[in-house]
Amino acid sequence: MRFTNIVFKTEKQAPKEEVSINAQLLQRASFVDKLNSGIYTFLPLGFKVLKKIENIIREEMNLLGSQEILMPALHPKQYWQTTNRWETMDDLYKLKDQSNREFALGPTHEEIVVPLIKKFVQSYKDFPFSIYQIQTKFRAELRAKSGLLRGREFVMKDLYSFHLTEEDLDNFYEKVKKSYFSIFKKLGIGEETYLTFASGGSFSKFSHEFQTLSEAGEDIIFICQNCHQAINKEIKKEVERCPNCSSNKFKKAKSIEVGNIFKLKDKFTRPFNFFVKDKDGREKIVLMGCYGIGLNRCLGTIVEKNHDEKGIIWPTSVAPFEIYLISLDSKKEGEDLYQQLTKNNFEVLYDDREESAGVKFADADLVGIPLRIVLSKKLKEKGQIEIKIRKTGEIKIVNQKDSLKVLKNLLKYL
Amino acid sequence: MRFTNIVFKTEKQAPKEEVSINAQLLQRASFVDKLNSGIYTFLPLGFKVLKKIENIIREEMNLLGSQEILMPALHPKQYWQTTNRWETMDDLYKLKDQSNREFALGPTHEEIVVPLIKKFVQSYKDFPFSIYQIQTKFRAELRAKSGLLRGREFVMKDLYSFHLTEEDLDNFYEKVKKSYFSIFKKLGIGEETYLTFASGGSFSKFSHEFQTLSEAGEDIIFICQNCHQAINKEIKKEVERCPNCSSNKFKKAKSIEVGNIFKLKDKFTRPFNFFVKDKDGREKIVLMGCYGIGLNRCLGTIVEKNHDEKGIIWPTSVAPFEIYLISLDSKKEGEDLYQQLTKNNFEVLYDDREESAGVKFADADLVGIPLRIVLSKKLKEKGQIEIKIRKTGEIKIVNQKDSLKVLKNLLKYL
Repeated sequence: MRFTNIVFKTEKQAPKEEVSINAQLLQRASFVDKLNSGIYTFLPLGFKVLKKIENIIREEMNLLGSQEILMPALHPKQYWQTTNRWETMDDLYKLKDQSNREFALGPTHEEIVVPLIKKFVQSYKDFPFSIYQIQTKFRAELRAKSGLLRGREFVMKDLYSFHLTEEDLDNFYEKVKKSYFSIFKKLGIGEETYLTFASGGSFSKFSHEFQTLSEAGEDIIFICQNCHQAINKEIKKEVERCPNCSSNKFKKAKSIEVGNIFKLKDKFTRPFNFFVKDKDGREKIVLMGCYGIGLNRCLGTIVEKNHDEKGIIWPTSVAPFEIYLISLDSKKEGEDLYQQLTKNNFEVLYDDREESAGVKFADADLVGIPLRIVLSKKLKEKGQIEIKIRKTGEIKIVNQKDSLKVLKNLLKYL
Repeated sequence: MRFTNIVFKTEKQAPKEEVSINAQLLQRASFVDKLNSGIYTFLPLGFKVLKKIENIIREEMNLLGSQEILMPALHPKQYWQTTNRWETMDDLYKLKDQSNREFALGPTHEEIVVPLIKKFVQSYKDFPFSIYQIQTKFRAELRAKSGLLRGREFVMKDLYSFHLTEEDLDNFYEKVKKSYFSIFKKLGIGEETYLTFASGGSFSKFSHEFQTLSEAGEDIIFICQNCHQAINKEIKKEVERCPNCSSNKFKKAKSIEVGNIFKLKDKFTRPFNFFVKDKDGREKIVLMGCYGIGLNRCLGTIVEKNHDEKGIIWPTSVAPFEIYLISLDSKKEGEDLYQQLTKNNFEVLYDDREESAGVKFADADLVGIPLRIVLSKKLKEKGQIEIKIRKTGEIKIVNQKDSLKVLKNLLKYL
């Protein structure tokens, strides 16, 4: 893509009212625009990152054998009354239509997915199975001041699994754990993301959160120094030793909850009377698990974890482009290399603006694309180009004829 | 995909309350589930079709050089007050958060996109440009009884273009016309879709709708028998002759509005005071066009146009799968061919259920996948398989060793 095709421009200063780093950088680099507190527009660069995150998650969900669906955001009141959450959930947006019928704007979809599945599944033969969606959710958060980390409208992946035995639920739950670690690894935040014991509510001993270390986090976790699982502050008092390995040595840290998984068991199937007949003809209550990942929050977390004073440093897997191309002295040479690179399937942002080298260098750092190529008359005379690695700052001078190979190799290992 | 992996089951009878064919067939074949009037869940098969439609539209928008973004659904009241539509738009869902701030649920995005663009664009040098999104919209329709044709929550592609001269707007508008015909052709409804003159409001002589002939349609159009453009009933009285060719011979028909394009000019830029300086330093009001396609409505229209008494007949371009595979006598042979076909990149729905041949044949017709393969002992003995074309009913007996080539050729021309 050519920079001049993007009308959304970078800013030298962050918006004054923003306190969080992810919101400051993502707005300065024109990945998102804030419409209202906790409500953001994804601009072209941000949209590309969001789609890459979406596809990484989708791939892993499909590997679990799960089927993708898309449920609505408008939820008739009756479903939320059935589970008593119409009155008890604080952050539920409620509205009426012209006929005074009441709806909730879905903050999650247990109330919708259980009656949906109940319509279609009457036999034990269908079990186990799972379905998921990647869909826009709404939560009337009282405070939404952490940029993309806590929004009022956001894209979420929610997966729901259905089982007839606790053992079967346990098995699938362990598979999802692995899948989640694979997702966070691919998103470039795997190394500092901890499986964290959290409250299981009244119906399960624990749930699990995936907590990524960050000073921007609103959570506090205690990391077991023996097994590297963690405990959320909320339940630390009740849990003196690591539930995984019984060690009592912990390290306290701030963190962001990037995902959570929950054995709901019959919490939602019971209010909807979702029973099926087992092999022997006995009625059995259906058991459920639910598994969430907030895409906006992941995007914000990636920025919190991957930036420096100059800007964002995208992991290659989710970067909007692979290469930021600058040609200092010749438009023609810039254009030629842009064409050659895109023909060879590189994702290139070509900075074809009439701006100084300084402005372009600063924007390349701010936007945070993994590799920067600079073409100049000086290097051209020696048949060379400059490649800079955003993450390390390392600069390589490469023979132009070897450049495609070098770029491919660099991207493979970034 | 294996049929047994899908827990959503086909039904012999349509839901009693459904009157429209698209809703009846899409629910019977388990493409969608109705949560509430005008509010549907896309089940795995329906979700696949929706994604295919989305990608066909996305490709065409990108060919126009347009950039994809994603705007929110929660719109602060002030934006809708600026254009006076907070009070005047009938089907606007309105809601309050806990702090009593008011929001609209976006039925369209002019009120959001104009201030967004105004923030970033101050120079004539940025013009012309366009941006689009594929996003979920909300309209509090009083009557929503045409299945996917008129929903309260639905996915829409909306494109907005920005210009400094009417000529430039006109040029882009003509390009979008072509792009829309290309989209409807790819969706398999091109032949009976007419460019239709409609009301331009107070600020433009005409707008254009894309109307697809259908008895399920709520619109009435008059098709010019000379040039094959049409006029919407709403403006027919004012317009006696074809605005395109001046002929006065028309044919009346019922139709579905699958898209519309509108020269908004300064209707929305003026309330937001969106001016930029031109080359000579003079302030100029920005001109706009808007261009919509409802994805759910397209999906419903495709079904209305492509079905028979047995079920849906998907055009290959949007079919959830290319091949419906049935093995009558041997599970192993079914499994082997399923593996071979998927390895060769065919999209296959393998009916591996323990059901009678009759049930499988009926479901193959209902679900409407372009090609059906039947394996049987009898044919196997001669090294043959049966291929049925859903659209024509034609049955071909093919040597199994030639089958991949035959399938590829059939799909190319369906």
